Amino acid sequence: MADKKLVEQITPMEEDFAQWYTDVVKKAELCDYSSAKGFMIIRPAGYALWENYMAILDRMFKETGVQNVAMPMLIPESLLQKEKDHVEGFAPEVAWVTEGGQKKLEERMCVRPTSETLFCDYFAKVVKSYRDLPQLLNQWVSVVRWEKTTRPFLRTREFLWQEGHTVHATAEEAEERTIQMLNIYADFTEQYLAIPVVRGQKTEKEKFAGAVATYTIEALMHDGQALQCGTSHNFGCDFAKAFNVQFLDKDNQLKPVYETSWGYTTRMIGALIMVHGDDSGLKLPPRIAPTQICVVPIQQRKEGVLEKAQELTEVLKKAGFRVKLDDSEKSPGFKFADQEVRGIPLRIEIGPKDIEAGHAVLVRRDTREKIQVSFENLAEETGKVLEQEQNDMFAAASKFLTDHTSSATTMDEMVDIVNTKKGFVKAMWCGCRECEDKLKEMAGITSRCIPFKQETISDKCVVCGKPATKMVYWGRAY
Amino acid sequence: MADKKLVEQITPMEEDFAQWYTDVVKKAELCDYSSAKGFMIIRPAGYALWENYMAILDRMFKETGVQNVAMPMLIPESLLQKEKDHVEGFAPEVAWVTEGGQKKLEERMCVRPTSETLFCDYFAKVVKSYRDLPQLLNQWVSVVRWEKTTRPFLRTREFLWQEGHTVHATAEEAEERTIQMLNIYADFTEQYLAIPVVRGQKTEKEKFAGAVATYTIEALMHDGQALQCGTSHNFGCDFAKAFNVQFLDKDNQLKPVYETSWGYTTRMIGALIMVHGDDSGLKLPPRIAPTQICVVPIQQRKEGVLEKAQELTEVLKKAGFRVKLDDSEKSPGFKFADQEVRGIPLRIEIGPKDIEAGHAVLVRRDTREKIQVSFENLAEETGKVLEQEQNDMFAAASKFLTDHTSSATTMDEMVDIVNTKKGFVKAMWCGCRECEDKLKEMAGITSRCIPFKQETISDKCVVCGKPATKMVYWGRAY
Repeated sequence: MADKKLVEQITPMEEDFAQWYTDVVKKAELCDYSSAKGFMIIRPAGYALWENYMAILDRMFKETGVQNVAMPMLIPESLLQKEKDHVEGFAPEVAWVTEGGQKKLEERMCVRPTSETLFCDYFAKVVKSYRDLPQLLNQWVSVVRWEKTTRPFLRTREFLWQEGHTVHATAEEAEERTIQMLNIYADFTEQYLAIPVVRGQKTEKEKFAGAVATYTIEALMHDGQALQCGTSHNFGCDFAKAFNVQFLDKDNQLKPVYETSWGYTTRMIGALIMVHGDDSGLKLPPRIAPTQICVVPIQQRKEGVLEKAQELTEVLKKAGFRVKLDDSEKSPGFKFADQEVRGIPLRIEIGPKDIEAGHAVLVRRDTREKIQVSFENLAEETGKVLEQEQNDMFAAASKFLTDHTSSATTMDEMVDIVNTKKGFVKAMWCGCRECEDKLKEMAGITSRCIPFKQETISDKCVVCGKPATKMVYWGRAY
Repeated sequence: MADKKLVEQITPMEEDFAQWYTDVVKKAELCDYSSAKGFMIIRPAGYALWENYMAILDRMFKETGVQNVAMPMLIPESLLQKEKDHVEGFAPEVAWVTEGGQKKLEERMCVRPTSETLFCDYFAKVVKSYRDLPQLLNQWVSVVRWEKTTRPFLRTREFLWQEGHTVHATAEEAEERTIQMLNIYADFTEQYLAIPVVRGQKTEKEKFAGAVATYTIEALMHDGQALQCGTSHNFGCDFAKAFNVQFLDKDNQLKPVYETSWGYTTRMIGALIMVHGDDSGLKLPPRIAPTQICVVPIQQRKEGVLEKAQELTEVLKKAGFRVKLDDSEKSPGFKFADQEVRGIPLRIEIGPKDIEAGHAVLVRRDTREKIQVSFENLAEETGKVLEQEQNDMFAAASKFLTDHTSSATTMDEMVDIVNTKKGFVKAMWCGCRECEDKLKEMAGITSRCIPFKQETISDKCVVCGKPATKMVYWGRAY
């Protein structure tokens, strides 16, 4: 039985979702506040998750030819101002360095909020001919955006991410790359984080500052609010023209390049918490969990127990699992609760009776199902159980998404759904900004995306009643 | 034969070492300048090197129990000022953020020049009892120090590094960890970068701001100047007292912790260039090279040549080598020069005559030695040749270090050696700051380290003639 003392410190999800989230972040030791207001400290358990995100995504990027680089952390103001829409979008939320080496700077520099300007400046230097294209670059860094209200992982003044930036000879190739990277984000999010997503395009109102088209994957959190999970932008030639990134094509004509960028951030640790967590704490999908298995000896002072636990731990390590043995002096109940708070996918209990019977007891974190497995089959069965847990967690999250995706044909209906049942609402839209503004003002509802998979709910815009052009996913969002 | 056109763009080392260095950095496409003055762009070839550094060091750190975290990028001024020596050391070279979100900040924040203050602030929160010790943390980030004159990799306003920070219950354990991490740096530098180092302690004058003791590894560049390669600091209790990091010990007494920090930076890419490079470009040791082998087809349009080159490339890939096939339309001569500039350790030439004879020709980058290897033994022999090249590169660098390490018993002798023969000078020292200052002022010579392996050169200080207490490595340094 899990130790109540540890569990009781987490506010129940139903009582106060925001407090539940904060409690889980704290109890699972993922993240902490810092003396730098609005900034976060990512603790070892949180950073180990991010390391797994990075390793998998980096491999997926590289398989498509992407190479990593490091651009400067600071951007001179004149460089930031070269692309009009971009600077308008970011200027309100940047941090400015105005002094360096005990002198006032001649030109102030902002801490990068994103690095399109620096990449374009670089591309302008190295791209001369069609032979230099495409350039497929990425960097793993942190960026600063001066947010007013902050929440761990979801909205902080600094967050970690990767930002990919590519330039191409043709519009078709750039569009293809934009969608390719969105699909990598979607695959990673679904296959590793076990979070189902809706893929689609952002409206003009919601797109990235300076982009021609922004694509997004959107997920649903356990409180029914949407979270934007990753975005991929097609800039067309706008940045290329502003930064003079040109190439001599095969036909001997000087042409501007076509550019894309795409980003995935530490907010996806927040998503992991809010999609899978429960009142006992975190629940990590096995494929992404830094520790997949926690071995807990029962009555560990009895002869042979600790030895057997160590032996099984070694067997599992050799089989390639990420496993830890908790041989501390704490009670089994405390260890169970600790493992649950931290979301370790599988607990293996091993006591004198188990040793006598020749089996261990596997306890899944997601369902708490107990499975007896004989010592001989341990590694093989553990693999199967973890695989099943991964699939079941995705299935459970998919069911939640389906159950919380509704359709509406009137605005009243939409607002009612969002207020009561929560979740996504599929509804038709005329395509004009005014209707989006109205929904935002009246009910705090925003367009999440125009999904690639279009359906016809009705033939009229849910807001103004004029002829509809698109079906849109709407909702309240983080 | 290597194509002269490509090679001629590199200034000969003997003619102008600084220009040679800049040329190699540029031609090998490691790094580029940026519109952010004094900052650098690390290009794909340079960053791929750093990725290898990171992967190996990170594994070595983790094997000793170190975990990674992410601390904020910005430090509030009040936090920076808590430890007196530390702030005095860093205040002159920090960059200040004074505005954020279109408002002047109530308290300005500096971009981290190093993060002792943030780690201490964190340790003060999480360390309560001896059970919470040791804390062994590290982060892979970039830091900003407002340098006046800059050179790619060696001295830039921003550089990438890792900074490890640990706290311990006893002085002995902290000292042990400080030395342990220095030895990891030394092992990595010697075994992977093939750069021999001298291990020792910094003098009071040269130690880190706020440290009780700083340990260092020092290497010799091809121009005879020294480079500090990695440092490890023991802070004793000074930071703990300034930041109130205390723990309840087993004896129920509240005690301050003992702290260490240690860092290794992208300047070690500069060291790699300056220790191994030659007038044809970069020379990468096989163990650290992102691409170890470049396969170059000769007369590649002749039937069967490209196919055989592809086949051999696949064989080598499967055997675990990092290999690239250069099947571009450029001439073999151009490809050879390109491979040499980029420092790829091994070139494999394969043409119609080779195919007929059933062998490939392996050409080492370091010695340009040509070795015929039959197709059947290719993978095995390639492994042996690369291993030999790694060892030979270390041996050559070690010989250079020995040949350029002299002893001196008088100041005139020391200055003469540094001016003519260059390199390290071993000489005795009384231990006082004034003698160090004098050598710096008169000849630009600094103490590099008090080596762990002490020798007796004479019994008098090389500067003042008073009784000597230590033997010191002296030299001019980057």
